[in-house]
Amino acid sequence: MEVRHPKVQNKRTGPGRPANPGGFLDGHACKGVTCSAAHSVDFPVSVVLPAGGTGERTGLQTPKQFCSVLGRPLISYTIQAFERVPWIQRIVVAVAKESTDLMADIIRRFRHQKVQVVSGGSTRHRSICNGVMALGEDGEGMAPDGPGVVIIHDAVRPFVEEEFLQKIATAAREHGAAGAIRPLVSTVIATTSEGFLDHSLERAKYRASEMPQGFSYDVIRQAYQRCSETDFEFGTECLHLALQYCGTNAKLIEGPPTLWKVTYRKDLAAAESVIKESLSESALVITGGRASAAALAEALQKAAGALQMGLDLVPDVTAENSRYLQTESNFIQVSINDPCLSEVEALIQALEEANPAPLHPLVVIWMRVVGEDEASDSGMVAPASALVDMASAAKLHQILLYGIQIHQSKDSERRDRSVTRAAQIVRVLIRERSPALVGQLLQA
Amino acid sequence: MEVRHPKVQNKRTGPGRPANPGGFLDGHACKGVTCSAAHSVDFPVSVVLPAGGTGERTGLQTPKQFCSVLGRPLISYTIQAFERVPWIQRIVVAVAKESTDLMADIIRRFRHQKVQVVSGGSTRHRSICNGVMALGEDGEGMAPDGPGVVIIHDAVRPFVEEEFLQKIATAAREHGAAGAIRPLVSTVIATTSEGFLDHSLERAKYRASEMPQGFSYDVIRQAYQRCSETDFEFGTECLHLALQYCGTNAKLIEGPPTLWKVTYRKDLAAAESVIKESLSESALVITGGRASAAALAEALQKAAGALQMGLDLVPDVTAENSRYLQTESNFIQVSINDPCLSEVEALIQALEEANPAPLHPLVVIWMRVVGEDEASDSGMVAPASALVDMASAAKLHQILLYGIQIHQSKDSERRDRSVTRAAQIVRVLIRERSPALVGQLLQA
Repeated sequence: MEVRHPKVQNKRTGPGRPANPGGFLDGHACKGVTCSAAHSVDFPVSVVLPAGGTGERTGLQTPKQFCSVLGRPLISYTIQAFERVPWIQRIVVAVAKESTDLMADIIRRFRHQKVQVVSGGSTRHRSICNGVMALGEDGEGMAPDGPGVVIIHDAVRPFVEEEFLQKIATAAREHGAAGAIRPLVSTVIATTSEGFLDHSLERAKYRASEMPQGFSYDVIRQAYQRCSETDFEFGTECLHLALQYCGTNAKLIEGPPTLWKVTYRKDLAAAESVIKESLSESALVITGGRASAAALAEALQKAAGALQMGLDLVPDVTAENSRYLQTESNFIQVSINDPCLSEVEALIQALEEANPAPLHPLVVIWMRVVGEDEASDSGMVAPASALVDMASAAKLHQILLYGIQIHQSKDSERRDRSVTRAAQIVRVLIRERSPALVGQLLQA
Repeated sequence: MEVRHPKVQNKRTGPGRPANPGGFLDGHACKGVTCSAAHSVDFPVSVVLPAGGTGERTGLQTPKQFCSVLGRPLISYTIQAFERVPWIQRIVVAVAKESTDLMADIIRRFRHQKVQVVSGGSTRHRSICNGVMALGEDGEGMAPDGPGVVIIHDAVRPFVEEEFLQKIATAAREHGAAGAIRPLVSTVIATTSEGFLDHSLERAKYRASEMPQGFSYDVIRQAYQRCSETDFEFGTECLHLALQYCGTNAKLIEGPPTLWKVTYRKDLAAAESVIKESLSESALVITGGRASAAALAEALQKAAGALQMGLDLVPDVTAENSRYLQTESNFIQVSINDPCLSEVEALIQALEEANPAPLHPLVVIWMRVVGEDEASDSGMVAPASALVDMASAAKLHQILLYGIQIHQSKDSERRDRSVTRAAQIVRVLIRERSPALVGQLLQA
């Protein structure tokens, strides 16, 4: 078993460290700041993700870890949550034989770098065991002083954060095993064999055992070497194996609610909502440096703020501001009386160059400002087909292009109403990221 | 305790009865068919809904039972789930003093008929107790032979179905108490006082106790009369009180996954998604009886079918077809070369008359078919302000009006593409029900 170093390890788990919420999306966690330094771990840590499940409970044909959220499989978000942690060396994913090709395709498409795929077993424990044993073999990415600590996690809990991973890794190093717990949501009851209430458990004394869990490599390896066929077949709890076969009482750490697991179909909708929300908190407004566009952008910024959406304003995305092309997911190009889309075309080109294969769809909104004289009551002329064509081309590069036409009325009340409407439309376009609406020119 | 009538009661709970999925929305459950007859219960049943919770776990300011989903508070969906069951007589809702006015407003706005509001207590058990005691008092809606069976449910589990309520009521009548159970999602573990694993429970022997639960009135009243202050303060499980103070072992019945409880903020997103999905399964296409419109509608029907959305086609909504005004939530008015919106105006008026205060937003899509000559590459003319004005007025009546312009190309490939795009836009408009996009004329 692992030698304990309580004093050394405890230094790193002070309560004052900042959390890293919403940091599951590559490149968007810290907006260019290397916030990971504070969570650094100085021993080798690897991860095993059992992903052999069949997804029966979601009621879907695709196993839930492979279900797509905004065009990306759930497991890719989970892998990303680990890959972005600099002190994690390797991620071993155990998948069913029939999913091997699919998994290889996911690794390629979403450019995962630390992942090794192994065959899953017929049960959860067998899959984890295969992953743990693979870590013990020599291979690329193997830490020179052995695997150190192994974190085991579910492929369907994509929102795990670095701060909590560090707590688990540190406690596992110190105590040999550690696991996340959460308060029980329901009372737990024991039933008689005839299906009646036998007794109910006192809720305060029990906890739900969740993921991630961490083990020193020796503990988890020995546990699997010593456990029985019955454990492999019917057991579910790794912490139990560590206790029974290695005498290791795991340290239990209360986890945040974000550790929740996608179990049913409705959970996929919840996951999509969480991801969409984190992608729609902010947008960049590009004014082209013109005073009239800047004034409109400021009014829009205020209206968007009232809808809990933060807008940054910049004249362009060159030099210093080019970093936004990497860190921002939503762009609004303000064009004054410019029907020819040249500015938005340049923006899309810059985005494609800066980020040739974005991990999630980016949104570009062409906000065309038209004078009052152009906006007659009887109708308006729009360069419909140019926008549609450009949107179709951009969609192939994961860029969703929409247009909003906004009227510069001389009447301040009408102008305000128009800006408010534009902000509402911006918010819903960015929030929903609907591929069906690309190329539309909406009226504000 | 209740006298048992196993043979009489068991007749009604055969496995062959049809479920009633998605039946939580008034008037949309059975599309005009009285499907409730099969689930009838011939003894008095009332409901107690404790709704005094503060919603801390959602991270929202509003208690979660009052959070709005598509403009309607969650608790109103739950009440509706009980009100639509003909054999349920009364629903007693226990709310905190500060929420009394809000609750009265909800009852008025959503036209709840069977609800009685009582003061909630400082704990869940005190709230339930207040509700149970109120059922024992004489009052309007009181069954002549006493309250019979009391069902207790959570205000934040809106998707409970009649079939399962009947199982619980029947078992409660037979055994004195009955409760819903679900398999445990996580392993349950016992912790040491120092925060280490003590032991884990064998998952197969335990169940999560969920809601609804049912009791014969005498059992639940006596349980609350006899229980201690400690039970009132710290207890959570009504089944436990029935066992401890009345010696009643509750019958446990495995419930469907739809019994889930809105606990965290992400669950609100999941609830919204479930409700939106049930509202967007179908739409009615009104062709005006013209052959060219009917041909387009059939093509649209096929394209929508590929997107899992069923379209019914009718020439108009008069006579026999006027029933759709009550049962359907989504309408598509096809207009051939008619820019003046007269048909859609008539439809909106008919909807307002048939359903003056809909319980959820209805969607009306004006699908304007234009000839190829009108759709030049350089632009198109749309009666923008007329549509915007009509949409603003309709929104006040909970009707969301959108426009789609579709091009009747002579080229069959272009025509098919246009129809496919129209179906995609229809689906996203109906699915999202976004108030920010009303009045927009989208191009297919």
